[in-house]
Amino acid sequence: MKTYLDCIPCFFKQALYSARMSKATKKTQKKILDQLAGIIPKISLESSPPEMARIIHKQMFKFTKQHDPYKKVKMQSNRMALEILDKLKAQVSHARDRLLMATKLAIAGNIIDYGAKHSLDVGGELKKIINQENKAIQKENKIIFNYGHFKSALKRAKTILYLADNAGETVFDRILIEEIKKIDNKKEIIYAVKEKPAINDALVEDALFCGIDRSAKVMSSGVDAPGTVLELCSKDFLKVYSRADMVISKGQGNFEALSSAKRPIFFMFMAKCPVVAREVNCQIGNIVLLYKGKK
Amino acid sequence: MKTYLDCIPCFFKQALYSARMSKATKKTQKKILDQLAGIIPKISLESSPPEMARIIHKQMFKFTKQHDPYKKVKMQSNRMALEILDKLKAQVSHARDRLLMATKLAIAGNIIDYGAKHSLDVGGELKKIINQENKAIQKENKIIFNYGHFKSALKRAKTILYLADNAGETVFDRILIEEIKKIDNKKEIIYAVKEKPAINDALVEDALFCGIDRSAKVMSSGVDAPGTVLELCSKDFLKVYSRADMVISKGQGNFEALSSAKRPIFFMFMAKCPVVAREVNCQIGNIVLLYKGKK
Repeated sequence: MKTYLDCIPCFFKQALYSARMSKATKKTQKKILDQLAGIIPKISLESSPPEMARIIHKQMFKFTKQHDPYKKVKMQSNRMALEILDKLKAQVSHARDRLLMATKLAIAGNIIDYGAKHSLDVGGELKKIINQENKAIQKENKIIFNYGHFKSALKRAKTILYLADNAGETVFDRILIEEIKKIDNKKEIIYAVKEKPAINDALVEDALFCGIDRSAKVMSSGVDAPGTVLELCSKDFLKVYSRADMVISKGQGNFEALSSAKRPIFFMFMAKCPVVAREVNCQIGNIVLLYKGKK
Repeated sequence: MKTYLDCIPCFFKQALYSARMSKATKKTQKKILDQLAGIIPKISLESSPPEMARIIHKQMFKFTKQHDPYKKVKMQSNRMALEILDKLKAQVSHARDRLLMATKLAIAGNIIDYGAKHSLDVGGELKKIINQENKAIQKENKIIFNYGHFKSALKRAKTILYLADNAGETVFDRILIEEIKKIDNKKEIIYAVKEKPAINDALVEDALFCGIDRSAKVMSSGVDAPGTVLELCSKDFLKVYSRADMVISKGQGNFEALSSAKRPIFFMFMAKCPVVAREVNCQIGNIVLLYKGKK
Protein backbone atom coordinates (compact mmCIF):
# COMPACT_ATOMS: atom_id res chain seq x y z
CA MET A 1 0.00 0.00 0.00
CA LYS A 2 1.37 3.38 -0.92
CA THR A 3 1.43 6.30 1.48
CA TYR A 4 -1.65 8.53 1.29
CA LEU A 5 -1.63 12.24 2.05
CA ASP A 6 -3.85 11.37 5.03
CA CYS A 7 -0.90 9.43 6.47
CA ILE A 8 1.12 12.65 6.85
CA PRO A 9 -0.76 14.07 9.89
CA CYS A 10 -0.51 10.60 11.38
CA PHE A 11 3.30 10.53 10.95
CA PHE A 12 3.47 13.68 13.08
CA LYS A 13 1.19 12.13 15.68
CA GLN A 14 3.31 8.97 15.81
CA ALA A 15 6.55 10.91 15.96
CA LEU A 16 5.26 13.02 18.85
CA TYR A 17 4.02 9.97 20.70
CA SER A 18 7.28 8.11 20.20
CA ALA A 19 9.28 11.16 21.25
CA ARG A 20 7.31 11.22 24.49
CA MET A 21 7.84 7.48 24.92
CA SER A 22 11.56 8.23 24.60
CA LYS A 23 11.20 10.75 27.44
CA ALA A 24 12.34 13.56 25.16
CA THR A 25 12.02 17.08 26.58
CA LYS A 26 9.44 19.38 25.00
CA LYS A 27 12.24 21.19 23.22
CA THR A 28 13.50 17.93 21.73
CA GLN A 29 9.95 16.90 20.83
CA LYS A 30 9.62 20.13 18.85
CA LYS A 31 12.98 19.52 17.20
CA ILE A 32 11.82 16.04 16.18
CA LEU A 33 8.64 17.45 14.62
CA ASP A 34 10.69 20.16 12.85
CA GLN A 35 13.01 17.49 11.49
CA LEU A 36 10.02 15.46 10.29
CA ALA A 37 8.62 18.59 8.66
CA GLY A 38 11.90 18.84 6.77
CA ILE A 39 11.47 15.28 5.45
CA ILE A 40 7.87 15.68 4.24
CA PRO A 41 8.61 17.56 0.99
CA LYS A 42 11.16 14.88 0.09
CA ILE A 43 9.07 11.76 0.69
CA SER A 44 7.82 9.59 -2.11
CA LEU A 45 4.17 8.69 -1.73
CA GLU A 46 5.02 5.49 -3.58
CA SER A 47 6.72 4.11 -0.45
CA SER A 48 4.51 2.25 2.01
CA PRO A 49 3.67 3.81 5.40
CA PRO A 50 5.96 1.37 7.32
CA GLU A 51 8.91 2.47 5.17
CA MET A 52 8.12 6.07 6.07
CA ALA A 53 7.69 5.19 9.74
CA ARG A 54 11.10 3.52 9.65
CA ILE A 55 12.77 6.69 8.35
CA ILE A 56 10.98 8.81 10.96
CA HIS A 57 12.04 6.56 13.83
CA LYS A 58 15.63 6.44 12.58
CA GLN A 59 15.73 10.23 12.53
CA MET A 60 14.26 10.33 16.01
CA PHE A 61 17.02 8.14 17.34
CA LYS A 62 19.51 10.87 16.45
CA PHE A 63 17.85 13.14 18.99
CA THR A 64 16.78 10.75 21.71
CA LYS A 65 19.48 8.06 21.55
CA GLN A 66 16.75 5.71 22.74
CA HIS A 67 17.25 2.47 20.88
CA ASP A 68 14.00 0.86 22.00
CA PRO A 69 11.62 3.40 23.58
CA TYR A 70 8.72 0.93 23.64
CA LYS A 71 10.66 -1.82 25.45
CA LYS A 72 8.88 -1.35 28.76
CA VAL A 73 5.47 -1.07 27.09
CA LYS A 74 6.15 -4.21 25.06
CA MET A 75 7.02 -6.20 28.16
CA GLN A 76 3.89 -4.88 29.88
CA SER A 77 1.82 -6.02 26.90
CA ASN A 78 3.46 -9.45 26.97
CA ARG A 79 2.77 -9.86 30.67
CA MET A 80 -0.77 -8.52 30.41
CA ALA A 81 -1.58 -10.97 27.61
CA LEU A 82 0.11 -13.91 29.37
CA GLU A 83 -2.02 -13.21 32.43
CA ILE A 84 -5.19 -13.89 30.44
CA LEU A 85 -3.74 -16.80 28.44
CA ASP A 86 -5.63 -19.45 30.44
CA LYS A 87 -8.90 -17.57 30.04
CA LEU A 88 -8.34 -17.29 26.31
CA LYS A 89 -7.52 -20.97 26.06
CA ALA A 90 -10.71 -21.81 27.94
CA GLN A 91 -12.65 -19.70 25.44
CA VAL A 92 -11.22 -21.83 22.64
CA SER A 93 -11.96 -25.07 24.55
CA HIS A 94 -15.60 -24.13 25.00
CA ALA A 95 -16.14 -22.99 21.44
CA ARG A 96 -18.20 -25.00 19.00
CA ASP A 97 -15.65 -24.25 16.25
CA ARG A 98 -12.32 -24.13 18.07
CA LEU A 99 -10.30 -22.97 15.06
CA LEU A 100 -12.75 -20.15 14.40
CA MET A 101 -12.53 -18.94 17.98
CA ALA A 102 -8.71 -19.16 17.95
CA THR A 103 -8.68 -17.18 14.69
CA LYS A 104 -11.02 -14.57 16.15
CA LEU A 105 -8.81 -14.24 19.20
CA ALA A 106 -5.66 -13.93 17.11
CA ILE A 107 -7.20 -11.03 15.20
CA ALA A 108 -8.66 -9.50 18.34
CA GLY A 109 -5.16 -9.57 19.84
CA ASN A 110 -4.35 -6.89 17.30
CA ILE A 111 -5.98 -4.37 19.67
CA ILE A 112 -2.60 -4.33 21.40
CA ASP A 113 -1.15 -1.63 19.23
CA TYR A 114 0.35 1.47 20.70
CA GLY A 115 1.17 2.66 17.20
CA ALA A 116 -2.44 3.43 16.36
CA LYS A 117 -4.18 3.69 19.71
CA HIS A 118 -2.66 4.98 22.88
CA SER A 119 -4.82 3.49 25.60
CA LEU A 120 -5.86 -0.05 26.17
CA ASP A 121 -8.49 -2.02 28.07
CA VAL A 122 -7.84 -5.55 26.86
CA GLY A 123 -10.68 -7.27 28.72
CA GLY A 124 -13.33 -4.80 27.63
CA GLU A 125 -12.13 -4.35 24.08
CA LEU A 126 -11.77 -8.09 23.55
CA LYS A 127 -15.35 -8.76 24.54
CA LYS A 128 -16.54 -6.03 22.20
CA ILE A 129 -14.48 -7.36 19.31
CA ILE A 130 -15.56 -10.97 19.77
CA ASN A 131 -19.19 -9.89 19.80
CA GLN A 132 -18.65 -7.60 16.85
CA GLU A 133 -17.07 -10.47 15.04
CA ASN A 134 -20.05 -12.68 15.79
CA LYS A 135 -22.22 -10.07 14.15
CA ALA A 136 -19.68 -9.92 11.33
CA ILE A 137 -20.05 -13.63 10.69
CA GLN A 138 -23.82 -13.30 10.65
CA LYS A 139 -23.62 -10.69 7.92
CA GLU A 140 -20.62 -12.27 6.25
CA ASN A 141 -21.32 -10.61 2.92
CA LYS A 142 -20.80 -7.17 4.33
CA ILE A 143 -17.69 -7.94 6.32
CA ILE A 144 -14.32 -9.13 5.09
CA PHE A 145 -13.85 -12.43 6.84
CA ASN A 146 -12.64 -15.12 4.41
CA TYR A 147 -12.74 -17.88 7.00
CA GLY A 148 -13.85 -20.72 4.71
CA HIS A 149 -10.95 -20.07 2.41
CA PHE A 150 -8.58 -19.74 5.34
CA LYS A 151 -9.70 -23.06 6.80
CA SER A 152 -9.21 -25.00 3.60
CA ALA A 153 -5.84 -23.39 2.83
CA LEU A 154 -4.75 -24.30 6.34
CA LYS A 155 -5.76 -27.89 5.78
CA ARG A 156 -3.55 -28.20 2.70
CA ALA A 157 -0.53 -26.22 3.92
CA LYS A 158 2.51 -28.10 5.21
CA THR A 159 4.69 -25.06 5.84
CA ILE A 160 3.07 -21.92 7.24
CA LEU A 161 4.83 -18.59 7.61
CA TYR A 162 3.17 -16.47 10.29
CA LEU A 163 4.19 -12.80 10.28
CA ALA A 164 4.02 -11.35 13.77
CA ASP A 165 2.81 -7.84 14.54
CA ASN A 166 2.94 -6.42 18.08
CA ALA A 167 4.37 -7.63 21.36
CA GLY A 168 1.59 -8.97 23.59
CA GLU A 169 -0.43 -9.87 20.50
CA THR A 170 2.11 -12.69 20.27
CA VAL A 171 0.25 -14.51 23.07
CA PHE A 172 -2.92 -14.42 20.96
CA ASP A 173 -0.94 -15.73 17.99
CA ARG A 174 0.33 -18.56 20.18
CA ILE A 175 -3.24 -19.70 20.78
CA LEU A 176 -3.98 -19.90 17.06
CA ILE A 177 -0.67 -21.61 16.34
CA GLU A 178 -1.26 -24.19 19.09
CA GLU A 179 -4.72 -24.82 17.69
CA ILE A 180 -3.31 -25.37 14.19
CA LYS A 181 -0.74 -27.78 15.63
CA LYS A 182 -3.50 -29.63 17.48
CA ILE A 183 -5.26 -30.24 14.18
CA ASP A 184 -2.05 -31.52 12.57
CA ASN A 185 1.15 -31.73 14.53
CA LYS A 186 3.26 -32.29 11.41
CA LYS A 187 2.71 -28.81 10.02
CA GLU A 188 5.79 -26.62 10.17
CA ILE A 189 5.04 -23.12 11.43
CA ILE A 190 7.59 -20.33 11.23
CA TYR A 191 6.85 -17.28 13.34
CA ALA A 192 8.69 -14.25 11.92
CA VAL A 193 9.30 -11.18 14.04
CA LYS A 194 11.16 -7.92 13.39
CA GLU A 195 14.94 -7.78 13.58
CA LYS A 196 15.27 -4.46 15.41
CA PRO A 197 12.88 -2.28 17.45
CA ALA A 198 10.07 -0.73 15.40
CA ILE A 199 7.45 0.94 17.59
CA ASN A 200 5.92 -1.89 19.67
CA ASP A 201 6.43 -4.65 17.14
CA ALA A 202 7.44 -8.03 18.56
CA LEU A 203 11.13 -9.01 18.48
CA VAL A 204 12.64 -12.47 19.05
CA GLU A 205 12.78 -11.75 22.79
CA ASP A 206 9.02 -11.09 22.87
CA ALA A 207 8.22 -14.26 20.93
CA LEU A 208 10.31 -16.32 23.33
CA PHE A 209 8.89 -14.58 26.40
CA CYS A 210 5.37 -15.41 25.18
CA GLY A 211 6.29 -19.07 24.60
CA ILE A 212 5.67 -19.17 20.86
CA ASP A 213 8.79 -21.33 20.42
CA ARG A 214 6.94 -24.29 21.97
CA SER A 215 4.94 -24.77 18.81
CA ALA A 216 6.64 -22.68 16.12
CA LYS A 217 10.11 -21.92 14.88
CA VAL A 218 10.91 -18.31 15.71
CA MET A 219 12.93 -16.30 13.22
CA SER A 220 13.63 -12.68 12.39
CA SER A 221 12.56 -11.21 9.06
CA GLY A 222 15.59 -8.95 9.14
CA VAL A 223 13.35 -5.88 9.07
CA ASP A 224 13.59 -2.81 11.29
CA ALA A 225 10.35 -1.21 10.07
CA PRO A 226 6.86 -1.63 11.60
CA GLY A 227 5.84 -3.81 8.65
CA THR A 228 7.46 -6.63 6.66
CA VAL A 229 8.89 -4.52 3.82
CA LEU A 230 10.28 -7.17 1.45
CA GLU A 231 13.14 -4.96 0.21
CA LEU A 232 14.46 -4.86 3.78
CA CYS A 233 14.12 -8.58 4.54
CA SER A 234 17.03 -10.98 4.97
CA LYS A 235 17.80 -13.60 2.34
CA ASP A 236 17.00 -16.36 4.81
CA PHE A 237 13.60 -14.90 5.45
CA LEU A 238 12.85 -14.39 1.75
CA LYS A 239 13.57 -18.08 1.13
CA VAL A 240 11.01 -19.07 3.75
CA TYR A 241 8.60 -16.45 2.42
CA SER A 242 8.68 -17.77 -1.13
CA ARG A 243 8.68 -21.46 -0.21
CA ALA A 244 5.92 -21.42 2.43
CA ASP A 245 2.62 -23.01 1.38
CA MET A 246 0.71 -20.36 3.27
CA VAL A 247 1.47 -16.91 4.67
CA ILE A 248 -0.56 -15.46 7.54
CA SER A 249 0.16 -11.77 7.97
CA LYS A 250 -0.89 -10.03 11.19
CA GLY A 251 -1.59 -6.35 11.70
CA GLN A 252 -2.01 -3.18 9.67
CA GLY A 253 1.72 -2.58 9.32
CA ASN A 254 2.28 -5.90 7.57
CA PHE A 255 -0.79 -5.30 5.41
CA GLU A 256 0.50 -1.88 4.39
CA ALA A 257 3.86 -3.42 3.50
CA LEU A 258 2.53 -6.51 1.69
CA SER A 259 -0.86 -5.62 0.21
CA SER A 260 0.64 -5.56 -3.30
CA ALA A 261 2.78 -8.68 -2.82
CA LYS A 262 2.84 -11.18 -5.67
CA ARG A 263 2.24 -14.29 -3.59
CA PRO A 264 -1.05 -15.28 -1.91
CA ILE A 265 -1.37 -14.01 1.68
CA PHE A 266 -4.02 -14.18 4.39
CA PHE A 267 -4.16 -10.82 6.14
CA MET A 268 -5.55 -10.60 9.65
CA PHE A 269 -5.92 -7.24 11.35
CA MET A 270 -8.21 -4.74 12.97
CA ALA A 271 -8.79 -1.70 10.74
CA LYS A 272 -7.51 1.15 12.86
CA CYS A 273 -7.26 4.06 10.46
CA PRO A 274 -9.53 5.52 7.77
CA VAL A 275 -6.91 5.02 5.06
CA VAL A 276 -6.63 1.25 5.58
CA ALA A 277 -10.38 0.93 6.10
CA ARG A 278 -10.93 2.65 2.74
CA GLU A 279 -8.23 0.52 1.09
CA VAL A 280 -9.99 -2.74 2.01
CA ASN A 281 -13.49 -1.25 1.93
CA CYS A 282 -14.50 -1.80 5.56
CA GLN A 283 -15.29 0.30 8.64
CA ILE A 284 -12.79 1.49 11.25
CA GLY A 285 -12.82 -1.00 14.14
CA ASN A 286 -13.77 -3.96 11.91
CA ILE A 287 -11.70 -7.08 12.25
CA VAL A 288 -10.55 -8.33 8.91
CA LEU A 289 -9.51 -11.74 7.58
CA LEU A 290 -8.66 -10.96 3.98
CA TYR A 291 -7.30 -13.34 1.38
CA LYS A 292 -5.28 -11.86 -1.44
CA GLY A 293 -4.47 -14.38 -4.17
CA LYS A 294 -1.57 -14.67 -6.56
CA LYS A 295 -0.97 -11.63 -8.78
CA MET B 1 -4.36 29.29 24.84
CA LYS B 2 -0.98 28.64 23.34
CA THR B 3 -0.37 26.11 20.60
CA TYR B 4 0.57 22.66 21.86
CA LEU B 5 2.79 20.24 19.97
CA ASP B 6 -0.32 18.04 19.68
CA CYS B 7 -1.87 20.78 17.52
CA ILE B 8 0.76 20.24 14.80
CA PRO B 9 -0.62 16.93 13.42
CA CYS B 10 -4.04 18.59 13.50
CA PHE B 11 -2.82 21.55 11.41
CA PHE B 12 -1.84 19.07 8.69
CA LYS B 13 -5.21 17.35 8.94
CA GLN B 14 -7.04 20.67 8.67
CA ALA B 15 -4.87 21.86 5.79
CA LEU B 16 -5.52 18.63 3.89
CA TYR B 17 -9.23 18.81 4.54
CA SER B 18 -9.43 22.46 3.49
CA ALA B 19 -7.35 21.76 0.39
CA ARG B 20 -9.88 19.11 -0.59
CA MET B 21 -12.74 21.49 0.15
CA SER B 22 -11.01 23.89 -2.26
CA LYS B 23 -11.08 21.14 -4.89
CA ALA B 24 -7.29 21.19 -5.08
CA THR B 25 -5.72 18.40 -7.14
CA LYS B 26 -3.71 15.75 -5.28
CA LYS B 27 -0.53 17.39 -6.52
CA THR B 28 -1.63 20.74 -5.10
CA GLN B 29 -2.73 19.07 -1.85
CA LYS B 30 0.77 17.68 -1.49
CA LYS B 31 2.27 21.10 -2.27
CA ILE B 32 0.08 22.64 0.43
CA LEU B 33 1.27 20.08 2.99
CA ASP B 34 4.88 20.65 1.90
CA GLN B 35 4.40 24.37 2.32
CA LEU B 36 2.92 23.82 5.79
CA ALA B 37 5.88 21.57 6.64
CA GLY B 38 8.10 24.51 5.75
CA ILE B 39 6.25 26.76 8.22
CA ILE B 40 6.35 24.33 11.17
CA PRO B 41 9.98 24.99 12.24
CA LYS B 42 9.26 28.74 12.21
CA ILE B 43 6.06 28.80 14.26
CA SER B 44 5.95 30.17 17.76
CA LEU B 45 4.12 27.90 20.15
CA GLU B 46 3.17 31.05 22.04
CA SER B 47 0.63 31.94 19.34
CA SER B 48 -2.85 30.51 19.75
CA PRO B 49 -4.10 27.77 17.40
CA PRO B 50 -6.48 30.13 15.56
CA GLU B 51 -3.55 32.43 14.76
CA MET B 52 -1.71 29.45 13.31
CA ALA B 53 -4.80 28.27 11.42
CA ARG B 54 -5.08 31.77 9.91
CA ILE B 55 -1.50 31.61 8.57
CA ILE B 56 -2.10 28.12 7.16
CA HIS B 57 -5.26 29.16 5.37
CA LYS B 58 -3.64 32.30 4.00
CA GLN B 59 -0.83 30.18 2.55
CA MET B 60 -3.33 27.77 1.10
CA PHE B 61 -5.07 30.59 -0.74
CA LYS B 62 -1.87 31.14 -2.72
CA PHE B 63 -2.27 27.68 -4.23
CA THR B 64 -6.01 27.29 -4.53
CA LYS B 65 -7.16 30.89 -5.14
CA GLN B 66 -10.33 29.80 -3.34
CA HIS B 67 -11.37 32.73 -1.21
CA ASP B 68 -14.12 30.88 0.69
CA PRO B 69 -13.89 27.09 0.17
CA TYR B 70 -16.47 26.40 2.89
CA LYS B 71 -19.11 28.75 1.45
CA LYS B 72 -21.34 25.97 0.15
CA VAL B 73 -20.97 23.93 3.33
CA LYS B 74 -21.77 26.98 5.44
CA MET B 75 -24.98 27.64 3.52
CA GLN B 76 -25.91 23.96 3.86
CA SER B 77 -25.38 24.22 7.62
CA ASN B 78 -27.49 27.37 7.79
CA ARG B 79 -30.33 25.74 5.88
CA MET B 80 -30.10 22.49 7.81
CA ALA B 81 -30.30 24.36 11.12
CA LEU B 82 -33.14 26.64 9.94
CA GLU B 83 -35.12 23.56 8.96
CA ILE B 84 -35.15 22.38 12.58
CA LEU B 85 -35.64 25.86 14.08
CA ASP B 86 -39.31 25.29 14.91
CA LYS B 87 -38.54 21.95 16.56
CA LEU B 88 -35.81 23.57 18.63
CA LYS B 89 -38.13 26.41 19.65
CA ALA B 90 -40.75 23.87 20.70
CA GLN B 91 -38.14 22.16 22.85
CA VAL B 92 -37.54 25.46 24.63
CA SER B 93 -41.30 26.12 25.00
CA HIS B 94 -41.86 22.76 26.67
CA ALA B 95 -38.88 22.99 28.99
CA ARG B 96 -39.33 23.59 32.71
CA ASP B 97 -36.37 26.00 32.67
CA ARG B 98 -36.60 27.66 29.28
CA LEU B 99 -33.32 29.57 29.60
CA LEU B 100 -31.47 26.40 30.56
CA MET B 101 -32.84 24.55 27.55
CA ALA B 102 -31.98 27.46 25.22
CA THR B 103 -28.45 27.54 26.68
CA LYS B 104 -28.09 23.79 26.22
CA LEU B 105 -29.22 24.07 22.62
CA ALA B 106 -26.85 26.96 21.91
CA ILE B 107 -23.93 24.85 23.13
CA ALA B 108 -25.19 21.73 21.38
CA GLY B 109 -25.28 23.78 18.16
CA ASN B 110 -21.51 23.77 18.38
CA ILE B 111 -21.60 20.25 16.88
CA ILE B 112 -21.77 22.04 13.55
CA ASP B 113 -18.05 22.34 13.12
CA TYR B 114 -16.32 21.10 10.04
CA GLY B 115 -13.02 22.31 11.47
CA ALA B 116 -12.87 19.54 14.04
CA LYS B 117 -15.27 16.91 12.76
CA HIS B 118 -15.97 16.11 9.19
CA SER B 119 -19.33 14.38 9.25
CA LEU B 120 -22.55 15.45 10.82
CA ASP B 121 -25.87 13.98 11.92
CA VAL B 122 -27.51 16.94 13.63
CA GLY B 123 -30.69 15.20 14.81
CA GLY B 124 -28.90 12.22 16.35
CA GLU B 125 -26.00 14.13 17.82
CA LEU B 126 -28.26 16.76 19.32
CA LYS B 127 -30.33 14.20 21.19
CA LYS B 128 -27.17 12.59 22.53
CA ILE B 129 -25.76 15.90 23.66
CA ILE B 130 -28.94 17.07 25.34
CA ASN B 131 -29.12 13.80 27.27
CA GLN B 132 -25.44 13.97 28.10
CA GLU B 133 -25.95 17.46 29.36
CA ASN B 134 -28.82 16.34 31.57
CA LYS B 135 -26.46 13.85 33.11
CA ALA B 136 -23.87 16.61 33.33
CA ILE B 137 -26.23 18.76 35.37
CA GLN B 138 -26.97 15.87 37.69
CA LYS B 139 -23.28 15.51 38.44
CA GLU B 140 -22.55 19.21 38.25
CA ASN B 141 -19.36 18.96 40.32
CA LYS B 142 -17.67 16.77 37.79
CA ILE B 143 -18.71 18.72 34.73
CA ILE B 144 -17.92 22.30 33.82
CA PHE B 145 -21.31 23.90 33.55
CA ASN B 146 -21.43 27.21 35.41
CA TYR B 147 -25.11 27.81 34.73
CA GLY B 148 -26.00 29.46 38.03
CA HIS B 149 -23.30 32.04 37.51
CA PHE B 150 -24.34 32.50 33.90
CA LYS B 151 -27.97 33.08 34.84
CA SER B 152 -27.22 35.73 37.42
CA ALA B 153 -24.70 37.54 35.20
CA LEU B 154 -27.31 37.56 32.45
CA LYS B 155 -29.84 39.12 34.80
CA ARG B 156 -27.54 42.05 35.62
CA ALA B 157 -26.08 42.66 32.14
CA LYS B 158 -27.48 45.48 30.04
CA THR B 159 -25.11 45.06 27.10
CA ILE B 160 -24.13 41.57 26.00
CA LEU B 161 -21.48 40.77 23.41
CA TYR B 162 -22.09 37.37 21.86
CA LEU B 163 -19.13 35.98 19.86
CA ALA B 164 -20.33 33.72 17.07
CA ASP B 165 -18.59 30.54 16.03
CA ASN B 166 -19.78 28.52 13.04
CA ALA B 167 -22.37 29.02 10.34
CA GLY B 168 -25.49 26.97 11.09
CA GLU B 169 -24.69 27.15 14.80
CA THR B 170 -25.93 30.72 14.38
CA VAL B 171 -29.51 29.39 14.34
CA PHE B 172 -28.95 27.81 17.75
CA ASP B 173 -27.50 31.10 18.97
CA ARG B 174 -30.61 32.86 17.73
CA ILE B 175 -32.74 30.70 20.01
CA LEU B 176 -30.72 31.65 23.07
CA ILE B 177 -30.63 35.31 22.10
CA GLU B 178 -34.41 35.38 21.57
CA GLU B 179 -34.89 33.74 24.95
CA ILE B 180 -32.70 36.36 26.61
CA LYS B 181 -34.70 39.09 24.89
CA LYS B 182 -37.94 37.48 26.09
CA ILE B 183 -36.73 37.78 29.67
CA ASP B 184 -35.81 41.46 29.19
CA ASN B 185 -36.40 43.17 25.90
CA LYS B 186 -34.27 46.17 26.88
CA LYS B 187 -30.98 44.26 26.88
CA GLU B 188 -28.70 45.19 24.01
CA ILE B 189 -27.17 42.16 22.35
CA ILE B 190 -24.35 42.47 19.83
CA TYR B 191 -23.66 39.38 17.75
CA ALA B 192 -20.07 39.49 16.44
CA VAL B 193 -19.03 37.37 13.47
CA LYS B 194 -15.75 37.07 11.54
CA GLU B 195 -14.82 39.68 8.94
CA LYS B 196 -13.48 37.31 6.29
CA PRO B 197 -13.80 33.56 5.61
CA ALA B 198 -12.09 31.38 8.23
CA ILE B 199 -12.96 27.70 7.79
CA ASN B 200 -16.72 27.45 8.39
CA ASP B 201 -16.99 30.37 10.80
CA ALA B 202 -20.08 32.53 10.44
CA LEU B 203 -19.81 35.80 8.51
CA VAL B 204 -22.29 38.70 8.42
CA GLU B 205 -24.12 37.00 5.54
CA ASP B 206 -24.65 33.86 7.64
CA ALA B 207 -25.92 35.82 10.62
CA LEU B 208 -28.43 37.67 8.44
CA PHE B 209 -29.48 34.50 6.62
CA CYS B 210 -30.20 32.87 9.97
CA GLY B 211 -32.26 35.86 11.13
CA ILE B 212 -30.12 36.86 14.09
CA ASP B 213 -30.61 40.54 13.22
CA ARG B 214 -34.24 40.34 14.41
CA SER B 215 -33.08 40.35 18.01
CA ALA B 216 -29.40 41.34 18.00
CA LYS B 217 -27.17 43.88 16.34
CA VAL B 218 -24.86 42.05 13.94
CA MET B 219 -21.28 43.28 13.61
CA SER B 220 -17.95 41.99 12.38
CA SER B 221 -15.05 41.58 14.79
CA GLY B 222 -12.65 42.47 12.00
CA VAL B 223 -10.97 39.08 12.32
CA ASP B 224 -10.10 36.65 9.53
CA ALA B 225 -8.99 33.82 11.84
CA PRO B 226 -11.16 30.96 13.17
CA GLY B 227 -11.11 32.56 16.64
CA THR B 228 -11.49 36.11 17.99
CA VAL B 229 -7.79 36.98 18.21
CA LEU B 230 -7.86 40.40 19.91
CA GLU B 231 -4.73 41.65 18.12
CA LEU B 232 -6.57 41.23 14.83
CA CYS B 233 -9.85 42.86 15.90
CA SER B 234 -11.12 46.21 14.63
CA LYS B 235 -11.17 49.27 16.91
CA ASP B 236 -14.96 49.38 16.76
CA PHE B 237 -15.17 45.80 17.94
CA LEU B 238 -12.63 46.33 20.74
CA LYS B 239 -14.73 49.22 22.06
CA VAL B 240 -17.78 46.97 22.27
CA TYR B 241 -15.65 44.19 23.75
CA SER B 242 -14.32 46.33 26.58
CA ARG B 243 -17.61 48.10 27.34
CA ALA B 244 -19.97 45.10 27.28
CA ASP B 245 -21.31 44.01 30.66
CA MET B 246 -21.07 40.40 29.63
CA VAL B 247 -19.26 38.44 26.92
CA ILE B 248 -20.55 35.07 25.73
CA SER B 249 -17.96 33.29 23.61
CA LYS B 250 -19.02 30.36 21.47
CA GLY B 251 -16.84 27.50 20.21
CA GLN B 252 -13.36 26.10 20.70
CA GLY B 253 -11.73 28.60 18.35
CA ASN B 254 -12.90 31.58 20.40
CA PHE B 255 -11.88 29.78 23.59
CA GLU B 256 -8.41 29.12 22.20
CA ALA B 257 -8.08 32.79 21.24
CA LEU B 258 -9.52 34.28 24.44
CA SER B 259 -8.81 31.84 27.28
CA SER B 260 -6.17 34.18 28.69
CA ALA B 261 -8.19 37.37 28.15
CA LYS B 262 -8.19 39.92 30.96
CA ARG B 263 -11.93 40.51 31.06
CA PRO B 264 -14.55 38.08 32.38
CA ILE B 265 -15.98 35.78 29.70
CA PHE B 266 -18.52 32.97 29.60
CA PHE B 267 -17.22 30.27 27.26
CA MET B 268 -19.65 27.84 25.68
CA PHE B 269 -18.38 24.98 23.54
CA MET B 270 -18.20 21.31 22.97
CA ALA B 271 -14.72 19.93 23.74
CA LYS B 272 -13.67 18.41 20.44
CA CYS B 273 -9.96 17.80 20.83
CA PRO B 274 -7.77 16.29 23.56
CA VAL B 275 -5.74 19.48 23.94
CA VAL B 276 -8.73 21.69 24.79
CA ALA B 277 -10.27 18.94 26.93
CA ARG B 278 -7.03 18.79 28.94
CA GLU B 279 -6.82 22.58 29.12
CA VAL B 280 -10.22 22.87 30.81
CA ASN B 281 -10.00 19.48 32.54
CA CYS B 282 -12.96 17.74 30.93
CA GLN B 283 -13.59 14.84 28.57
CA ILE B 284 -13.76 15.00 24.78
CA GLY B 285 -17.40 15.35 23.75
CA ASN B 286 -18.38 17.19 26.95
CA ILE B 287 -20.33 20.36 26.53
CA VAL B 288 -18.82 23.16 28.54
CA LEU B 289 -20.18 26.37 30.03
CA LEU B 290 -17.11 27.87 31.64
CA TYR B 291 -16.84 31.19 33.41
CA LYS B 292 -13.45 32.85 33.49
CA GLY B 293 -13.35 35.90 35.76
CA LYS B 294 -11.30 39.08 35.66
CA LYS B 295 -7.52 38.58 35.65
